[in-house]
Amino acid sequence: MSDSLSAYKTLEARFRRLGVLAEVGGLLGWDSAVMMPKGSGGQRGEVYAEMAALKHDLLVDPMIETLLDTAEAEVSVFNPWQAANLREMRDQWIEATAVPVDLVSALAKQANDLELLWRDARENSDFDAVAQPLADLLSLTKQQAIAIGDAKGLSPYDALMGMFSPGQTKADVDPIFDNYAEFLPNFLEDVLDYQARLPALPAYDGPLAVVQQHALSQHLLGEIGFDFNRGRLDTSEHPFCSGTLDDIRMTGRYSEDELGIMPPIHELGHAIYEMQLPKEWAFQPVGQSLGMAIHESQSLLHELQVARSPAYIRYLSGILPQYLGKQPAWEEEALARRLNNVERSYIRVEADEVTYPAHVILRYRLEQAMIAGDLAISDLPGAWSDELDRLLGIRPRNHAEGCLQDIHWFVGLMGYFPSYSLGAMLAAQIFQAAKSALPNLEQDIERGEFSRLRGWLGTQVHGKGRLLLPPELIKSVTGAPLDIEIFKSHLKARYLPA
Amino acid sequence: MSDSLSAYKTLEARFRRLGVLAEVGGLLGWDSAVMMPKGSGGQRGEVYAEMAALKHDLLVDPMIETLLDTAEAEVSVFNPWQAANLREMRDQWIEATAVPVDLVSALAKQANDLELLWRDARENSDFDAVAQPLADLLSLTKQQAIAIGDAKGLSPYDALMGMFSPGQTKADVDPIFDNYAEFLPNFLEDVLDYQARLPALPAYDGPLAVVQQHALSQHLLGEIGFDFNRGRLDTSEHPFCSGTLDDIRMTGRYSEDELGIMPPIHELGHAIYEMQLPKEWAFQPVGQSLGMAIHESQSLLHELQVARSPAYIRYLSGILPQYLGKQPAWEEEALARRLNNVERSYIRVEADEVTYPAHVILRYRLEQAMIAGDLAISDLPGAWSDELDRLLGIRPRNHAEGCLQDIHWFVGLMGYFPSYSLGAMLAAQIFQAAKSALPNLEQDIERGEFSRLRGWLGTQVHGKGRLLLPPELIKSVTGAPLDIEIFKSHLKARYLPA
Repeated sequence: MSDSLSAYKTLEARFRRLGVLAEVGGLLGWDSAVMMPKGSGGQRGEVYAEMAALKHDLLVDPMIETLLDTAEAEVSVFNPWQAANLREMRDQWIEATAVPVDLVSALAKQANDLELLWRDARENSDFDAVAQPLADLLSLTKQQAIAIGDAKGLSPYDALMGMFSPGQTKADVDPIFDNYAEFLPNFLEDVLDYQARLPALPAYDGPLAVVQQHALSQHLLGEIGFDFNRGRLDTSEHPFCSGTLDDIRMTGRYSEDELGIMPPIHELGHAIYEMQLPKEWAFQPVGQSLGMAIHESQSLLHELQVARSPAYIRYLSGILPQYLGKQPAWEEEALARRLNNVERSYIRVEADEVTYPAHVILRYRLEQAMIAGDLAISDLPGAWSDELDRLLGIRPRNHAEGCLQDIHWFVGLMGYFPSYSLGAMLAAQIFQAAKSALPNLEQDIERGEFSRLRGWLGTQVHGKGRLLLPPELIKSVTGAPLDIEIFKSHLKARYLPA
Repeated sequence: MSDSLSAYKTLEARFRRLGVLAEVGGLLGWDSAVMMPKGSGGQRGEVYAEMAALKHDLLVDPMIETLLDTAEAEVSVFNPWQAANLREMRDQWIEATAVPVDLVSALAKQANDLELLWRDARENSDFDAVAQPLADLLSLTKQQAIAIGDAKGLSPYDALMGMFSPGQTKADVDPIFDNYAEFLPNFLEDVLDYQARLPALPAYDGPLAVVQQHALSQHLLGEIGFDFNRGRLDTSEHPFCSGTLDDIRMTGRYSEDELGIMPPIHELGHAIYEMQLPKEWAFQPVGQSLGMAIHESQSLLHELQVARSPAYIRYLSGILPQYLGKQPAWEEEALARRLNNVERSYIRVEADEVTYPAHVILRYRLEQAMIAGDLAISDLPGAWSDELDRLLGIRPRNHAEGCLQDIHWFVGLMGYFPSYSLGAMLAAQIFQAAKSALPNLEQDIERGEFSRLRGWLGTQVHGKGRLLLPPELIKSVTGAPLDIEIFKSHLKARYLPA
């Protein structure tokens, strides 16, 4: 075996170990959110901290750099999967070694402390209570961004975005978001006018039984392609999906006041991605999913493109009465309007498909200004209010429905938000490609039949792992780079029917 | 800081890491048994194998030996807890390094393969199907026993017992078990005669609702001292307890045909031990429980000494009707006879308190003969039958109720069985000490009030972790070494009332 290949094989063994620790970490996270008794949190925190230190030590081990150098010295010996795996190993190593250990600890500690403060501050709508610690955390986040950016030759903000979605840059994202910001105000007016002319929606006939909603969700997920022999659906405060391949853990959340099938279907999109990753690269860097924007494209393809489409709503309209009783709200037109209702609102996680990008664009712009030093923390609430007014024509009435609503910045997550909306836009484009590749796809959906779509996504997206970078993948799947016009056409067709 | 102390502190950091991995392993095991989808087993197997290799690598790291040597060079700098911690670290290191890596892998593989064969063989009562692979596994187990024995200056069988209960030797156990084997036949005759003279037991009035049994178990466990804010009670195929300190996971198993409260109470004894370990030594070797015999003494103290005692049965007789309806089976005398019924039987896990040690003594004798090479695998069924006849006066009618009934030997666990009965005997002795130390303890029990007993066990046993070795602990708690006469007196008083 050549020195390069031999070094690579040693790296594979080490990164397999790291991959297994990541799998274990996912399971611990699921347990914390779904099963763990409340009083066990302190002990679990110690477990997380030690596991994080262990992973860090395994990755910054001086042996790794030597092996990476040796392996990279003779690239011709690698097949494309091995070459991509090596690229991902180097990338993980750079991120781990670029940031001094002291800074990693300081970030973790400040994020942990601020999260607790933020929970109270949001409850009390009290921005002053978190302003200074947020400024302190921002300063640490900025140091991290600069360190990783220097190591990768990226601007600080691009370095942050790249941690969540590899290769995502401001140069690519700015024109897309600017385009949408310009498109939105008039379009939103038109949609709201259109909706206003329709008759009032029928209210629900009494509470919607939680047990029945869960049973219905299980039914729908099974049809769309979730294998309950290799995964679970439970409930938690915030729905999520964790796990990989043959062991997927999803959650939903139900209330008697609202139909709660969309969150499980959203998480299912994440789940199918993880289930269809390339099994022969399990636990290796190249075998993992391709970052947040692509992941979100898969959840939103299922939630927005499929499950809120006329074809699936027709299907739902037939099955809902079996689980939740016959009532006017399940009639096709009423259901379609309810599932696709648009309004100007303050809270991102409650926003509809049309206004959601405005919430993201606002955060994208403000976090860049904060990282660049152009926006002081004390000016954040005012800037938030002005930007929301520009994008949606409303101003938050308090901090809780303004800049305190999301946890992200208060735990040091900056550069994460744009992936949500890029995912929604990619979802439209990938679904359009699926419709071209799979004739009569809508007839499948109308019958609750998803095997062709699942197979196509498996071949085109999921089974590729991290073989390609996101821009290459998007081009290989859809034949073109991300094109916002496809998303806009989709919105026009759905929300302003001819 | 002295070199010794500095070396010790480095060891503490490494063993803390190992302790956290053990905690994670416990949680994964709980998940496998209670939550994991069936189809996820293959992937979980890969996770276990990699985690085992990681732990092994962290323990056999050459740095550890140097640090142990340095730390041990100047023992005077350590307080008793640190000294005991160092002793336990050396012990773990010896066990990990004594056995060649190839042998460890061969054992794991052979045990894994044989477990699958054994499941079918037991189903079909087919000894021939497992005879040769069992002989192969025995040969590997023997090599392991010799390797660890050589490293610790112990005979092979003592080395095996020591892996589960530190310091347990054939020289100590033989006289105890021989004594019981001699005592049992006549005593058993007397008990069976006594029982035969009593009127027939009332049958249950219909099925016992599983949901109500679970609710009752939760009620009882909460009273005896389980904190549901720091632990869970679920169900699994075989009841067990895992976890430590602030995160304990227990299981029970219920059927409509039998009252299923004793398995959860048994596991609760394990749970209270783990909950009351010394928190300041969490994740360190000295902070762990003191081996199988002591652990079993705590579960059996709760199950046999407390929960099957007249005082608690009086209490149960009052509370059972609230959960499972009023019926003759819950009347005090009927309940006492049902919970303490003695009979000659084939299956260890279904045996009563009186005959259980016979099942253990049989296995203890046969596994020693196998390790010593005095009993060929082909002669095992015959030897089993002869020994059961000598001890209990019955012969198994097939292999499934004979030497195929337990999983232990078929996964390479030899030297494990004796702890079960030593635990039962220790439980009697420790409970006797508790009664001396806590006046009117039985009145507490009769009221379902356990705080004094729990506090006493915490101080005397649980809170000591592995500071003392088992013989020292038993002496410190009860003032004497294990004395089988106390167990025999307990049996006479319970099963042959004057």
